[in-house]
Amino acid sequence: MGEFDLIGRLVEIVEGAGAGAGPGGSGRVVIGSGDDAAVTEPGGVTATSVDAFVEGVHFRRETASLEAIGRQAIIATLSDLAAMGAEPGEAYVQLGLPADLEGARIMELGNGLASAAAAAGVAIVGGDITRAPVLFLALTAVGHASAAEDLVTRSGARPGDVVAVTGTLGGAAAGLLLLERPELSRGVDDAVAEGLRHRQLEPSPRLGAGSALAASGATAMIDLSDGLGGDSGHVAKASGVALRIDVDRLPVQEGVAEVAKTAGADPLDLIAGGGEDYELLATLAPDAFEEARVAVERTGISLTAIGEALGGAGVTLRLSDGSEREPSGFDQLRR
Amino acid sequence: MGEFDLIGRLVEIVEGAGAGAGPGGSGRVVIGSGDDAAVTEPGGVTATSVDAFVEGVHFRRETASLEAIGRQAIIATLSDLAAMGAEPGEAYVQLGLPADLEGARIMELGNGLASAAAAAGVAIVGGDITRAPVLFLALTAVGHASAAEDLVTRSGARPGDVVAVTGTLGGAAAGLLLLERPELSRGVDDAVAEGLRHRQLEPSPRLGAGSALAASGATAMIDLSDGLGGDSGHVAKASGVALRIDVDRLPVQEGVAEVAKTAGADPLDLIAGGGEDYELLATLAPDAFEEARVAVERTGISLTAIGEALGGAGVTLRLSDGSEREPSGFDQLRR
Repeated sequence: MGEFDLIGRLVEIVEGAGAGAGPGGSGRVVIGSGDDAAVTEPGGVTATSVDAFVEGVHFRRETASLEAIGRQAIIATLSDLAAMGAEPGEAYVQLGLPADLEGARIMELGNGLASAAAAAGVAIVGGDITRAPVLFLALTAVGHASAAEDLVTRSGARPGDVVAVTGTLGGAAAGLLLLERPELSRGVDDAVAEGLRHRQLEPSPRLGAGSALAASGATAMIDLSDGLGGDSGHVAKASGVALRIDVDRLPVQEGVAEVAKTAGADPLDLIAGGGEDYELLATLAPDAFEEARVAVERTGISLTAIGEALGGAGVTLRLSDGSEREPSGFDQLRR
Repeated sequence: MGEFDLIGRLVEIVEGAGAGAGPGGSGRVVIGSGDDAAVTEPGGVTATSVDAFVEGVHFRRETASLEAIGRQAIIATLSDLAAMGAEPGEAYVQLGLPADLEGARIMELGNGLASAAAAAGVAIVGGDITRAPVLFLALTAVGHASAAEDLVTRSGARPGDVVAVTGTLGGAAAGLLLLERPELSRGVDDAVAEGLRHRQLEPSPRLGAGSALAASGATAMIDLSDGLGGDSGHVAKASGVALRIDVDRLPVQEGVAEVAKTAGADPLDLIAGGGEDYELLATLAPDAFEEARVAVERTGISLTAIGEALGGAGVTLRLSDGSEREPSGFDQLRR
């Protein structure tokens, strides 16, 4: 297969993706790819997020399949739209492809991009493909809402707000440890270990939960792509509040504590430091929490109150014994 | 200056750019950078174009300044919006920065991005910066129009249409030859040589001319970023017509013929094969051409009829002696 055919086939795979693919499919795409620009009719407001992923920096081809790399790039980019409470719409994919990447593997990359976009109902309507010395993916995702007031920024948290988190934490970080050091699965049930690995390899952006939180009056929201520790700090800073998080209330994925123990790691580093769970952190007025919890659970995801916004600045983790510490990073363990 | 400060300063330079920078500035930007996503209120329809530029593939740091690299990336991306007749709105910039790129040079890159965006009235409202083994820029540009009917695709040319081109051709290719082989300027007046070099280093996207052509009823339009030969072929194919272009009618920048002669090159390779002039090719019904010419000249750019759309397929160049040939590429001369 020549290079020209290869790119044609890749475009076919990638742009066939998404419930809304092709002109008119999403109701917003007027002209799809193939012209100078894709044309859409957004209606209300758009939320646009861009995210770049570079071989050797964000992933290694030696330890991740091309399909997983493509999928995770889409998921990480859509996670930012989830954190605004936006409805996902269109995506644009720019790929730098090294000459040593074989045709079949490029198709795997395309399949990963296409399957993750399709799962989220996103239409990939444009892109650019170029040669590059290392593999990189530069994604642009566009989400929609009726009005700017329907979207949730990082800056609206107020003292007294409940701090809540969707789903469970630590699974992706523990799963990564299992993938890199399979011997760590000794102390864990097979199905539980598989759940952890799955969490690392096939996370889901919390698009439904993000919409539900936005509709339920979340005052601030962010996705935990850098981990609870770092990302809660962004909300505290942007909102001009302090956040106090009770470690005992954190919803932890099954098996995380066991893997941490076998690895000799502090479980809190996996739970509060590990990104890639793609859960959302939101703040809500106390009387809005219960309605939000019910609305989020209707999307199949739990919502757990884990702390409180206070006057002041910064993030504090309150431990079981009442002592407090700052969140630590997960950097020393990250690939 | 630490890496964190550096990135902060770069973001400041880049996002300070554009007449419409900052929330509310363009009238469409509701929330600028710094949150999970930028929020805009487009109004009618949007045209979105993405373009990636990679060191060693699209540019070399040895022969282009960082400022020129940043500027040309913006210009090439906006040129696609010009070719739709869209009003430029917002841009998103993803940068991969190698570790050996010093702070001062990164700021030059930022200045190039910012100055080109500002010149076009475009607000840079989002981005992502990452480490990378080679420098790359992945740009997303969003343009606007009231309705999809106001935009011009590649596919509307009809047999009998006039083929027209904005401005002059060949200047950027001849300028590149002068930059790479300064001795070629021997046979050319100093001011003319400077004009050619300027054309290569500081081209302009034809945004005003593109709007004027769209408003004057252009049936198809494309920017000549791959050169007249290649890009006219895209219009012919998308529209299902043949295009016949008269070489004698091509508007050629002053000095191109002289540089080609001194270099021992076929001037037609520079004129029809050289990209980077960023002129537009449009097709128009014959009775719409004169009005379009006047409208485009009001933006300070000439519009020249260079040929005709016919039934059939492909592109033919008709020479002075009446003979015909296919357009050739410029690949052998391109960096």
